[in-house]
Order: sequence, then C-alpha cells, then structure tokens
Amino acid sequence: MSVSADSGISLEELRLAARNHAMPLEALRWPITPAGLHYLLIHYDVPLVEPGSFRLEVGGAVGQTLSLSLDELRARPSVEVAVTMECAGNGRALLEPRPISQPWLTEAVGTARWRGVPLAALLDEVEPAASAADVVFGGLDRGVEAEVEQRYERSLPLAEARGAGCVLAYEMNSAPLLPQHGFPLRLVVPGWYGMTNVKWLSSITVTEEPFAGYQVAHAYRFRRSEDEEGRPVTRMRPRSLMAPPGIPDFFTRDRVVAGGAPVVLEGRAWSGKAPIVRVEVSDDAGASWAEGDLVHDLRDPFAWSGWSFRWEPASPGPYTLCCRATDGTGEAQPLEPEWNLGGYENNAVQRVPVVVR
Amino acid sequence: MSVSADSGISLEELRLAARNHAMPLEALRWPITPAGLHYLLIHYDVPLVEPGSFRLEVGGAVGQTLSLSLDELRARPSVEVAVTMECAGNGRALLEPRPISQPWLTEAVGTARWRGVPLAALLDEVEPAASAADVVFGGLDRGVEAEVEQRYERSLPLAEARGAGCVLAYEMNSAPLLPQHGFPLRLVVPGWYGMTNVKWLSSITVTEEPFAGYQVAHAYRFRRSEDEEGRPVTRMRPRSLMAPPGIPDFFTRDRVVAGGAPVVLEGRAWSGKAPIVRVEVSDDAGASWAEGDLVHDLRDPFAWSGWSFRWEPASPGPYTLCCRATDGTGEAQPLEPEWNLGGYENNAVQRVPVVVR
Repeated sequence: MSVSADSGISLEELRLAARNHAMPLEALRWPITPAGLHYLLIHYDVPLVEPGSFRLEVGGAVGQTLSLSLDELRARPSVEVAVTMECAGNGRALLEPRPISQPWLTEAVGTARWRGVPLAALLDEVEPAASAADVVFGGLDRGVEAEVEQRYERSLPLAEARGAGCVLAYEMNSAPLLPQHGFPLRLVVPGWYGMTNVKWLSSITVTEEPFAGYQVAHAYRFRRSEDEEGRPVTRMRPRSLMAPPGIPDFFTRDRVVAGGAPVVLEGRAWSGKAPIVRVEVSDDAGASWAEGDLVHDLRDPFAWSGWSFRWEPASPGPYTLCCRATDGTGEAQPLEPEWNLGGYENNAVQRVPVVVR
Repeated sequence: MSVSADSGISLEELRLAARNHAMPLEALRWPITPAGLHYLLIHYDVPLVEPGSFRLEVGGAVGQTLSLSLDELRARPSVEVAVTMECAGNGRALLEPRPISQPWLTEAVGTARWRGVPLAALLDEVEPAASAADVVFGGLDRGVEAEVEQRYERSLPLAEARGAGCVLAYEMNSAPLLPQHGFPLRLVVPGWYGMTNVKWLSSITVTEEPFAGYQVAHAYRFRRSEDEEGRPVTRMRPRSLMAPPGIPDFFTRDRVVAGGAPVVLEGRAWSGKAPIVRVEVSDDAGASWAEGDLVHDLRDPFAWSGWSFRWEPASPGPYTLCCRATDGTGEAQPLEPEWNLGGYENNAVQRVPVVVR
C-alpha cells in the first residue's frame, strides 16, 4: 500500500475505477438493487467457468471430504437471504492522504437476495476436526499481488463460518449468479464487508493453523503504518447514504433542487453489527441534526433499512445535506473518517451539496 | 469542453467514472454481453419510471398523433436485433491533451439483443408531413448542461430514422430493459454511437426545422476548437479489442502470460459502417502484423464479430500486443487517434503490454 498526497487520480486508479462498478446513488430508491447496479469489485479477472464440469471441493482437517457438482448443490435444501454488501474500501478516495488502490468514493454498495446452501449444514456434514481453527474459501480467479501469483482466498474462524448465517449462493435475485458476481457459486457472509464473500468459490478447506494468506494477513487489515500488524477488517460499520435530490449537472454532478415546496429526502442505512435504530439528517453540513423516518422494508437482519425525511429548505441558496446512521450497538457514523493505510471502513457521513432555486 | 494537459484525473472525472460503467475486457469472451457488464453512460440520473402510467407520445409535423402505453407497444409486431453499442467518447482519456468529460479508456462497449417495435412502421403510421426534416427523440432524464436545465434529446434525419433499422426496444436479452438501460423503452439505432440510442424514451417529435438541441448542435460534434462548427458524430468507426491474455496484477493490471506454449488471443471487432473484413494482430507494438481468424458468430450486421489468433511468443520477455480491424469500406483503425475537442471517435489500436514468463 502507498498513499498519494496530490489530488490527481493516476491512470492505474482510473483503470480500476473503469472496471469496478459503483452503484449510482439514485439506485438507493430500490430495496433490492437491480441487476447490474450492485457494486462490483473484481480483484483479478472474471473467470469463464464451464458449469457442467464445475465442482466444489470440501476438505482439509475434516472427517469426510466432499466433492459436489452444481446440480448436487442445487438439489440440497436451500435458504434465501437479502444481504447488503459494501466494499471494505468504500470511501477510500475521500481520505487524505489518499491510499492508492481502487479509488471508491461513496457508492460501493448494493443489496441482493442470495439463494443457496447453508454453509453450517455442509460443515456439520464434513465433521471438522476438534483441532480445526479456520475455514479457507478459495475462488477460481487468479492474479498477481505483492509480486506473487495467487488465487483469491479468504478465511473465517470456524465458529464464525458455522454461526454467521453464511450461504453458498448460486442464485442472485431469483436468477443464476451473473458471471461478475461469482457464477456459478459464491460465499455470502451476512454483515461482513465484501472481500469475505468469495466469488467463483471452488474449494472450502478446514485448517488447523490460522490461515495466513495474502488477503487476510496482508490486505484488509486496519492499520496506520506498514510497521503495524493491525487488526483484520471484518463487519461493516454503520453507514447511511442519500439519493441526491433534484437534478444533476452532467459534468460536476452538482445538484439543483426546485424550491417553494418540501423535498422528500430518501436513502438507506445499514450496519454489519446490529440493526439500524436511527438516521438523522442535516442541511447545514452537520452542525444540526433532525431525525428521519425509518422503514424496515426488508426483514433480513443484514439488509439495509430505508429512511426518508421531509425537508423544508428555509430559503433559496446552497446547502450541504448529510445523513448519519446509528445502529443497535450505539455506534454512529463519525463526521470525519478514521484514516488508515489501506483506506478501509471509511463510514464518515456523506456530504451532498445542493442549490435550492 | 475543456482539456487537461496534466495526467492526474480530477475528482469530477472520477465521480463520472464511478457511476458510468465500462465493460471489463474479459467480457469480450461472450458474444452477447452478460447483464450488468454492458457499458453504461448515464448523462443525468436514472429516472424512476412507473410503467403503468408510462406513455410514448408521437407527434409534431405528422398527419396523425399517437399516444401509446407500454402494453400497446408490446402488443405490436416486434423484431429483435443484436447490436454492438459503443460510447462516442470511448478512448477519450487516452488523448493528449485529455478532453475533460467522462474519462473512458478503451472499454465503453457492449452487445445486446434488443426486442421492440420497428420505428419505420410507427413513423409510416403517423404520416410525417412532406416538409418534415428531423425526428427528435426525448427521454425522461433531466439535468443541467451548459448551465441550462434540460431533458436529454437527440435527433435523426427523417430518412435515417426510417431506413436504418431503428427499434423502440422494451426488452434486452429476453428480459425487460434494466432501469439503467432505459426502462421501459429506449431507441436503438444500429451502427450509431451510443448517444443516439435515447434511453427512457417518452416522446418522438417530427420537426420541419433541423433540430438544434444541445446534444446535437453543441455536444457530440467532431471539431478541433470551440470556434469550429465541426461535423456531427454519427456512425461507429471500425474498432477491435482483445481480451487481455494471462493473469493480471491487481493494482497495475499488468499481465503475466505463461510461456512455452502457444497462446490463443481472442477478441471482438465492429464497425457502424460495414461488416468487419479483417483483424490483424501485432506483438511488437504495431511494427508488424499478421492476420487473425474471424468468426461471425452473430449474424446481425451491426453486431460485433469474434476473432482469434494463435500467438507463439518467440521467447520470454515483454511484448506489446495490438489488434487492428478493417471494415468493408476499407477503413482500418489508425495507430494514433485523431485528436478532437470532445474526445470522440478515438478508434486507435489498443495496446496490451504483457510479460511472457
């Protein structure tokens, strides 16, 4: 990881921004994000997978290994969960100095209904050893990081893998997974940042030693310097976003709002730690706040809640709108982000400048 | 329009790059681009359209006006066409100095099957006046450009609107249009750059005067300076792209290719003027060329063709791979782009640096 103190985004960052898709914020109007608008981070390339020969291999420190075709997975009892998923690096490009990686602004998020096999049942079936520590999830995507050729791999502690309602998903919004979302199979870990939701999942390996792969031991750690070991990035911090009101300028994206009538502000809020209990709105850049109305229109505990707020601008002119979520643990979004080397977990309140005419 | 001579992408450009999606180049492997990987340029915001109350209004200098619901449109005879669509600004961010707008690199393209009502039949039905000049297509999306609030509008000369195989599409790849692709209705103009394919189409107006709206008279003109009137941007120039071989570095996207065996290079090529007749490949940055194999796997005249080339790297080391398409008019891709103020029609050959190990 390196940082950049200048404001210009480099060609390398632009290349990543072109292929990794953010969710345009007006898509916050839909409780389930329409296909193709859910955020997307592709670490390497989307692999081309032939579903007929695909197999999920389950092994390692287990009493019983498994090798399952897609048809065999689909024949098992399934569950469907609506899950809000956010990239751990969402907000990275707003940090100063800017950590150099995929330059997300605020919109690396989306919500989908994922259907598949409960991971807990599959783990019970393979009988993990009493000495088991972690469960490692390996994808079919391969690339180079830190000059080492590798496949994408992430782990969970066994207890978390068993207890967190994880799903091996083969459907997204009642259709087969799209290639870019992990066809034919991906891991879904409700409440965790996106990097743990391994796409193109082809192996599950129970280990007796804690997993020390690149994406766990080096990337996705919250630390302020290279010297620090830091802590792993895990569950999503509380966050809210607003669908910017009014209409945009094409280039600047600055917003113009028609005055003379109340404006209904709308958005969504989520946390990977507990349900959202409050969303507040400010029209003076966070100097004062008023409480919005929450709508829990999706019942799943790790799906976002809707919120709205009837805003009556005092007069024409410029405003900076903000929203701030608080979850059931009492954690609220900060006004300023907590800087870190990887640019993770930036859940500072969104600022939406508008001009009322 | 303005230009930037420095290499750093601005925050405004990054904001556009985040919401406007490019097609990751590995998606060139699919003849029909999977949902959510087709490129997307949203001038303003994706509007939220209630399909039950939607109507298409057809009027202006006509003998007979029409007002059609979505059900009425769907009840008419329909056609389906596979069409490759590319943004006129594709390649803009590779120009020097860089025109400042949506900073596309090379991948603002995609191919879909569009089903809908042939425009020609609808135009015949409304009986355009003998004095008719243009047909203006208006969308439901609104925003600000050049400090003027406006809706998105583009026009075609009447003869082009009648003759070019245009479709009023309500389905994309056998599913209702996705919101971001124009739900519930969009215009598809085979062979033209994307800006003419008006999304969220709600009005068709026949005019007796040539249309002088912003998107025709000011934007989307090929000119070298603000003083010049320039010419309108219309049909796509020939272009080919390659799915980069090997595996990528996460951050730089530099590619590593395994040596010791032939490598099958693959990609697609298209032109809005005539079918592709030749794709050539170079592994020395365009100093020498060899002809690839064409596969016309989609029969529609304005859908891209596949191509492949069996590459045998002479030795390990760095290479710059290129591909170059020629269409039936004899027009071939240039090695260097033709600079213009808006950054349009950059069809210079793609350069893909790889290292063979």
